Amino acid sequence: MVDMQLVFLGTSSGAPTVQRGLSSIALIRGAELLLFDAGEGMQRNFIKAGLAMNKKMKIFITHMHADHCVGLLGLLQTMELQGREKSIDIYGEPRLEEFLRENMRIIGFRLTFDIIVRKIEKEGVIVRERDYQVSCCQAMHSVPSFAYCLEEFDRPGVFNVAEARRLGIPEGDLYSKLQRGEDIVYGGQTIRSSQIVGRPRKGRKIGISGDTRPTDRLARFFKDCDLLIFESTYSQDKQEKAMENGHSTAAEAATIAKKADVDKLLLTHFSARYDETSLLVKEASAIHYNVEAAEDLKVVRVSYKQDS
Amino acid sequence: MVDMQLVFLGTSSGAPTVQRGLSSIALIRGAELLLFDAGEGMQRNFIKAGLAMNKKMKIFITHMHADHCVGLLGLLQTMELQGREKSIDIYGEPRLEEFLRENMRIIGFRLTFDIIVRKIEKEGVIVRERDYQVSCCQAMHSVPSFAYCLEEFDRPGVFNVAEARRLGIPEGDLYSKLQRGEDIVYGGQTIRSSQIVGRPRKGRKIGISGDTRPTDRLARFFKDCDLLIFESTYSQDKQEKAMENGHSTAAEAATIAKKADVDKLLLTHFSARYDETSLLVKEASAIHYNVEAAEDLKVVRVSYKQDS
Repeated sequence: MVDMQLVFLGTSSGAPTVQRGLSSIALIRGAELLLFDAGEGMQRNFIKAGLAMNKKMKIFITHMHADHCVGLLGLLQTMELQGREKSIDIYGEPRLEEFLRENMRIIGFRLTFDIIVRKIEKEGVIVRERDYQVSCCQAMHSVPSFAYCLEEFDRPGVFNVAEARRLGIPEGDLYSKLQRGEDIVYGGQTIRSSQIVGRPRKGRKIGISGDTRPTDRLARFFKDCDLLIFESTYSQDKQEKAMENGHSTAAEAATIAKKADVDKLLLTHFSARYDETSLLVKEASAIHYNVEAAEDLKVVRVSYKQDS
Repeated sequence: MVDMQLVFLGTSSGAPTVQRGLSSIALIRGAELLLFDAGEGMQRNFIKAGLAMNKKMKIFITHMHADHCVGLLGLLQTMELQGREKSIDIYGEPRLEEFLRENMRIIGFRLTFDIIVRKIEKEGVIVRERDYQVSCCQAMHSVPSFAYCLEEFDRPGVFNVAEARRLGIPEGDLYSKLQRGEDIVYGGQTIRSSQIVGRPRKGRKIGISGDTRPTDRLARFFKDCDLLIFESTYSQDKQEKAMENGHSTAAEAATIAKKADVDKLLLTHFSARYDETSLLVKEASAIHYNVEAAEDLKVVRVSYKQDS
């Protein structure tokens, strides 16, 4: 059981407001922190949320607009002030590398740790760890933009050793077969795998849209997410503006969440015109049954399907 | 009478804290806003302070460390989102131009207004307006750094027209002579300028240190300031750190304020280690009689000498 929670570090689009900072989402999964976007000033909420600058960390940038990437500079410098030594992988489109390199040269900062910029040039799996992977999919925005998914691998069911012993099955090959889901014959008796091994424990799947128009490609990419965080810059009456600027309305976010059979939809990246977001939640809730609005410093625990 | 007030938009050094953002000071003088430094995230406090993105504005950057200049990117973009049309002058060392140019290229943003980068290559007056000037002086930091002073020109005293008429003096040349401080003879009678014209009204002088060690050069530059905002990164027990990092202690800020016969000293740019600043104010107050600590969103009205 790996504990997983999201903390929203910025939920405004374009410009910050009194209540909302610029885009950034921290996904804390066990001992690791995965950061999606780093809008200007996000380090302030990172600190307010009590997150640790020295944690094992990966950073994913959806696209190279200032409100999604400029906060990297300050975040990295504060990590350096705090003496971070662990290296850090940062994923994004090729200009990310240039952005970091040129700013480090011009502003003249050195880091006490390595940053490894992983240029994303095509869709697919970009991180594969022991128990999860992160993949990316092209989004549709005014500049190259990627959506991300974190998927945990399913874990095999719990092996009931006491029951296996009670039936007298010897440890070794037969245990392995049962664990792999194969039925065995032992002592003339058929023993079904399901007698000994619980059902596989489903991994969780979290999707993050970045800035985008809704597309069928994204609906497929986000298929069966436990939690989808989708941009929701506008309400329905601003549909034209959404199309013009390469953004989505709350209703479009909900439509894609419904198509993708997502369990829970979290709306974020609100235009500064919305002091509060009840209209957006209302419009989305007419389409999807489980919608919430993000707000700065909101914490969302991501439970396993069987927990809920 | 031009109303003048300061608003602190960020008072932390290096890294932000829960309470403090990164360096930025707005000086609102009549219809104009002069901004000194733009640390990451300062636009958030700019908005919280209710300041207008479309105002006549000049920006001065003390030095090219990220915590003093990175906020420019977001500020300019938010101005653009709000449809600013007025051009804006930005003053700073030559790398400022490169910083803006390269980021605008890499992040790919266009502005609806002109920015005119004024490279500072030597000390002296850099802005001369009808009723004030801004000058700069080399500070002593780990990178090229400038301190700034805004000085209003003295205004002639108030001309008492009623009294001049009562004495029967005809308008014209004689009025001008009196206004210039010359005594006149009229109707066989000597009329002293001081009978008709009040004493000259002293302009105000505001000094802003940026990041620096204390120097005699700065003490001269800040001579007779009505208000001096001086960096005060450390308390006295961190004297060595201050020297190592090119910063000042509160006591050093007070010593320079005393040498310069400054009326009021405002401490700012506090190390993140200080949750509250009473120790720093105490150490400075042992040396200078009028010391206050800045805090985010603090407003300080700058009155004329005769008002106080």
